[in-house]
Amino acid sequence: MQTPDWIAVDWGTSNLRVWLMREDGTPIAARTGDRGMNSLTRDGFEPALLELVSDDLPSTGPVPVIVCGMAGSRQGWAEAPYRAVPCPPPGLAEATAVQTADPRLSVRILPGIKQDKPADVMRGEETQIAGALQLRPGFDGVICLPGTHTKWAHVSAGEVVSFRTFMTGEIFALLAKSSVLRHSVDTDGWDDAAFADAVSDGMSRSTPLSADLFSLRAEALLHDLSPARAHARLSGLLIGLELAGARPYWLGQEIAICGSGGLSRAYAAALKAQGAETHILDAEETTLAGLTAAYRSQKEPST
Amino acid sequence: MQTPDWIAVDWGTSNLRVWLMREDGTPIAARTGDRGMNSLTRDGFEPALLELVSDDLPSTGPVPVIVCGMAGSRQGWAEAPYRAVPCPPPGLAEATAVQTADPRLSVRILPGIKQDKPADVMRGEETQIAGALQLRPGFDGVICLPGTHTKWAHVSAGEVVSFRTFMTGEIFALLAKSSVLRHSVDTDGWDDAAFADAVSDGMSRSTPLSADLFSLRAEALLHDLSPARAHARLSGLLIGLELAGARPYWLGQEIAICGSGGLSRAYAAALKAQGAETHILDAEETTLAGLTAAYRSQKEPST
Repeated sequence: MQTPDWIAVDWGTSNLRVWLMREDGTPIAARTGDRGMNSLTRDGFEPALLELVSDDLPSTGPVPVIVCGMAGSRQGWAEAPYRAVPCPPPGLAEATAVQTADPRLSVRILPGIKQDKPADVMRGEETQIAGALQLRPGFDGVICLPGTHTKWAHVSAGEVVSFRTFMTGEIFALLAKSSVLRHSVDTDGWDDAAFADAVSDGMSRSTPLSADLFSLRAEALLHDLSPARAHARLSGLLIGLELAGARPYWLGQEIAICGSGGLSRAYAAALKAQGAETHILDAEETTLAGLTAAYRSQKEPST
Repeated sequence: MQTPDWIAVDWGTSNLRVWLMREDGTPIAARTGDRGMNSLTRDGFEPALLELVSDDLPSTGPVPVIVCGMAGSRQGWAEAPYRAVPCPPPGLAEATAVQTADPRLSVRILPGIKQDKPADVMRGEETQIAGALQLRPGFDGVICLPGTHTKWAHVSAGEVVSFRTFMTGEIFALLAKSSVLRHSVDTDGWDDAAFADAVSDGMSRSTPLSADLFSLRAEALLHDLSPARAHARLSGLLIGLELAGARPYWLGQEIAICGSGGLSRAYAAALKAQGAETHILDAEETTLAGLTAAYRSQKEPST
């Protein structure tokens, strides 16, 4: 196999993703591991990375490794201090260099972004935002990055102006898997109409949300609510609540959604019902575009 | 020790509470066990009860045992089918008798209450409502029973007219113990002012709730938010959201709160900030009053 010119790494809380890259920004191979930040002490990051790439490293000269995500947190490989909004997505000039035992590696970790008020932080999404700006040059509007902690970011003139993080995905997972609703929800099932109704209920200002949630259990006990409909309704209630709170972000804006397929489509459907059109960007492609932009930023003066 | 005339049992999902009772309704002794419904198969209930009371049973004649709670669910000791609202809290006439291997026991399980629309169910709280009506004869208003699944019940003319269950307590516990907020929240700490502010935020129609929740994490990372304040704020945001949804229940009503000390006081404080006065009833005393009312209902014609 071809030797990589550089290596792109997205190192999250519970797993990591590595791409062996050509100089021109095309991937030679992609690999995924389960050694996320949460499972590692500081000394564990280099071995975890080598486990995935050691056989592919050239013996001559160090290979640049560009890392984004939680590896740059205080509990990570090396702290890459946050940049503060408003700012462009950070590039290599702001990255933290990491000393490695293996001389074949030259590792740099990209910083996350912080916001003073309302207090908020991101690590990894800033690189996806950089990628979105590569894929859609001149984008001006809001980028929604759905996930465990969904981010909504205002982007204008190449800068992240402000952002908010919604715990919707984590709350959904806790309710679906660890609450009394686990008996009533099948996360493999879905129902478009139930989702749409629930989004509307979740957005409504008079909805008793945590009572509507319990009703999923009671509907299953009393009226045989199907686990697939319960799943769609649970998702819809929580996304509806988020969209109501995030309205100042998306109302009247150009909206890009960057996330995994099913979740992105759910957000797009919910926003469309509110009259808001969206563009969906592939999450992996966007991450890679952001890491590639960072890799190139060491060679080109920024404009 | 004195032999009990009858035995009162509150059998919940994760534990059970047993009182050895005198004929006149005063307890001789109270015992708590951890053999809740979730840890038992159908055959396990009788041994679990005997473990707590066997030494105290008289050899002559069976002792009446009155049970409320999840032991009456389909997965419990024996199903005690729900009564439907509007209805008075069920008494012994509606109870399900259970055959026991031990001839010293005469067990009856009180039914729960169901509501068709919005779909809802309770098991155990109906007996607390019966107790509240004993402690406050002629009560007309709303009874709030805070807990894992907080109930709000409209009670009028001795009947439960309607009710709603809010998952606030379960959502709080999942967020405080199992989400990213576990790093930032100390459930042993508290801050009255932070709670009051958060209730107000949680009730506000424009609050991005799941973003305000994540801000607890970001505030801890960026601004050293104390874990005690984070606890009070998490609790306040969720109780505020509940009070906004439950407003049709409590607005302009006489309000009784029946729950554990700290949680009841938090609800009372939150409601007081909205101009609503409350009476707090002791949860254990109320449960016992309800079970005693059921015990007596076998002897007295209902009025």
